[in-house]
Amino acid sequence: MSYIENFAPEDFKVPGFKASGIACGIKKTGKKDLALIISEAPAQAAGLFTTNKVKAAPVLIGQYRIKKGTSRGVIVNSGNANACTGKQGYKAAEKMTILAEKALGFSKGSMLVSSTGVIGVPLPVERVEEGMQKLVEGLSVDGLNDATEAIMTTDAFPKRALVKGKVGGKTVTIAGMAKGAGMICPNMATMLAYFLTDANIKSATLKKAFKQAIDLSFNSIIVDNDTSTNDTALIFANGVSGGTEIKNNTADFKAFTKLLTEASVKLAKMIVKDGEGATRLIELDIRGAKSVNDARKAARTIAESMLVKTAFFGGDPNWGRIMGALGRAGISLDESKVDISFNGVPVVKKGLDTGKEAQAATAIKVKEIKVIVNLRSGSSEATIWTTDLSYEYVKINSAYRT
Amino acid sequence: MSYIENFAPEDFKVPGFKASGIACGIKKTGKKDLALIISEAPAQAAGLFTTNKVKAAPVLIGQYRIKKGTSRGVIVNSGNANACTGKQGYKAAEKMTILAEKALGFSKGSMLVSSTGVIGVPLPVERVEEGMQKLVEGLSVDGLNDATEAIMTTDAFPKRALVKGKVGGKTVTIAGMAKGAGMICPNMATMLAYFLTDANIKSATLKKAFKQAIDLSFNSIIVDNDTSTNDTALIFANGVSGGTEIKNNTADFKAFTKLLTEASVKLAKMIVKDGEGATRLIELDIRGAKSVNDARKAARTIAESMLVKTAFFGGDPNWGRIMGALGRAGISLDESKVDISFNGVPVVKKGLDTGKEAQAATAIKVKEIKVIVNLRSGSSEATIWTTDLSYEYVKINSAYRT
Repeated sequence: MSYIENFAPEDFKVPGFKASGIACGIKKTGKKDLALIISEAPAQAAGLFTTNKVKAAPVLIGQYRIKKGTSRGVIVNSGNANACTGKQGYKAAEKMTILAEKALGFSKGSMLVSSTGVIGVPLPVERVEEGMQKLVEGLSVDGLNDATEAIMTTDAFPKRALVKGKVGGKTVTIAGMAKGAGMICPNMATMLAYFLTDANIKSATLKKAFKQAIDLSFNSIIVDNDTSTNDTALIFANGVSGGTEIKNNTADFKAFTKLLTEASVKLAKMIVKDGEGATRLIELDIRGAKSVNDARKAARTIAESMLVKTAFFGGDPNWGRIMGALGRAGISLDESKVDISFNGVPVVKKGLDTGKEAQAATAIKVKEIKVIVNLRSGSSEATIWTTDLSYEYVKINSAYRT
Repeated sequence: MSYIENFAPEDFKVPGFKASGIACGIKKTGKKDLALIISEAPAQAAGLFTTNKVKAAPVLIGQYRIKKGTSRGVIVNSGNANACTGKQGYKAAEKMTILAEKALGFSKGSMLVSSTGVIGVPLPVERVEEGMQKLVEGLSVDGLNDATEAIMTTDAFPKRALVKGKVGGKTVTIAGMAKGAGMICPNMATMLAYFLTDANIKSATLKKAFKQAIDLSFNSIIVDNDTSTNDTALIFANGVSGGTEIKNNTADFKAFTKLLTEASVKLAKMIVKDGEGATRLIELDIRGAKSVNDARKAARTIAESMLVKTAFFGGDPNWGRIMGALGRAGISLDESKVDISFNGVPVVKKGLDTGKEAQAATAIKVKEIKVIVNLRSGSSEATIWTTDLSYEYVKINSAYRT
């Protein structure tokens, strides 16, 4: 048991959690824009937030509240990011949590909050207030599907993942949902992800596992190079599985982290595939680096190169642009050792052209391209997923906000 | 006297220098592809080269030879970058200098060399050999125009600048030429710039002035974010003006550096304007930064944001994307102090929307956009010039190399 492909909507649930998703009128389209996810009992919780210094109000609240390590859940609106909105914005975010806590009879400070949407526009928190009763009444164990829909902005499809596995002597379930299409309608580049699990694990250990999983998934995708003011990933663990506690650095910890990583990698890759304007999913495998840091730097620099991304859009196996990116990545590099292959076709051996460009051009005329770069300078590795850069990207992102 | 607008081709010369430019057959189009610039007497010389760790063979030779501080000139080919070409490439670059030195009767090691064009393809140095006699015979004091043409790759127009000013008691001339269109046909993103002057200045002082000028010009433009394997800027000073020697930290030094900066800023802005696919020239003025380093980091992060660049292409005064870029720039930042204006229209005051978006949208529907960001955290400043990101950029850079 592990990742479950094509699960039925009715299987997308975790014992002890309820959720709901409704339209409260923040989105002009009338689509769902308010989500609620709660744990029936106080849950262990961990969170990771944007590194952008300009942080939206809900991020500031979340960073503070997550410190105590327990939470009852999260309320999320889409359609408005509540970022660059000053003190008024902070009050609006706080009010969202107070409204939910009161309606649910939860203690003050027990709820978290997220927002995603347009920047710099005051959040109409009265819509949240008006919708609260309906939102709470809608709570059900099957509500995660509605909640997933309600956090979407320009996502072409809802992003859900489900994994199950034996941990601590019991079958543990992890459900994950995410939103984000990377290169997005103006101001909506935010990535949000929520994970629910019935595993028995304390918040400090949970945070460690979560950090590892997020680094290998959401922190390993690059669509454009911008970091949102609102990026948030939260995990809640309620212990309902009844397994023994997952302690740090045990086999159970490894098993749990593996399951969690599997779910988050699946979600992260869905975000890349949904990158608006993306025509190809590109996996960059850096091998033989002197350090993991070098491997990640190399992968990021290639993934962020507009010249590399446009070449892939055009189906051009332009390895010169990859060599150029490696050279400015700030890593330990010996050009004469580098090997590069595109979908299995070696295009560079020891820094020189192999003459197989025509073969490589054919091999990359597909939806998924795997680039392997072997630096032959060490034994560290990293993988990053990215997209190409298309006309559609420019079209979507240059459209005036309406 | 200083920068000379719209000078006649016959005025583009500096006493004591000769140049030539011919077609030797490296470019398949039959256009000029081989340039020679020489000083009639040994000149003081300084050079600045790409920071990319993958350096083309001519860059390696230049970095070594420039150390002695004197040179007789440079031979340049376009159409082939001679990068990622291994030992064979190094020999080819060296041979270019040997051929020129022999034909001119110059001592070994006195000539520099540059290449620009496709990466990873062996340089057909025999074409240079065949063309050498014609190249040398073509040398003339009026030859800088031909040389400027011969270093072009996908440049839409030749880039030339001429400044004159009183330094050391005499009128000093500086002529500058450059190639580069920033976002370029596959593998031709290289920037080359050569400056000739009759100023009387020693190489160490010359290098200092040159570094200052290049930092404020070629190092202050961003078209895409890639650094070429071949970027090279060289300056030659022959002292023919007869002025007194320009010593470090004197009024003459300042006057000379100012003239040189003026010429190089003009050339750098020409490169941005010629950015293929660029529809707008964007000047980013960062003010009130805690340090110059912060100001430059802020400007670079904004200039490198694909979201910012596409918004400008669309004429969208999307200040949220600029705030987002500032937040991840790694600078000292207090969001609640930031002011932003677009072509004089304030769109953000103290971190909040001013409600003047419609006015700003009208103000930026022009070819040149000036963005002023005041961080109000200090007194340091920086200016960076960049372009928007258009369909044409994607088109040009995704086209398969032919």
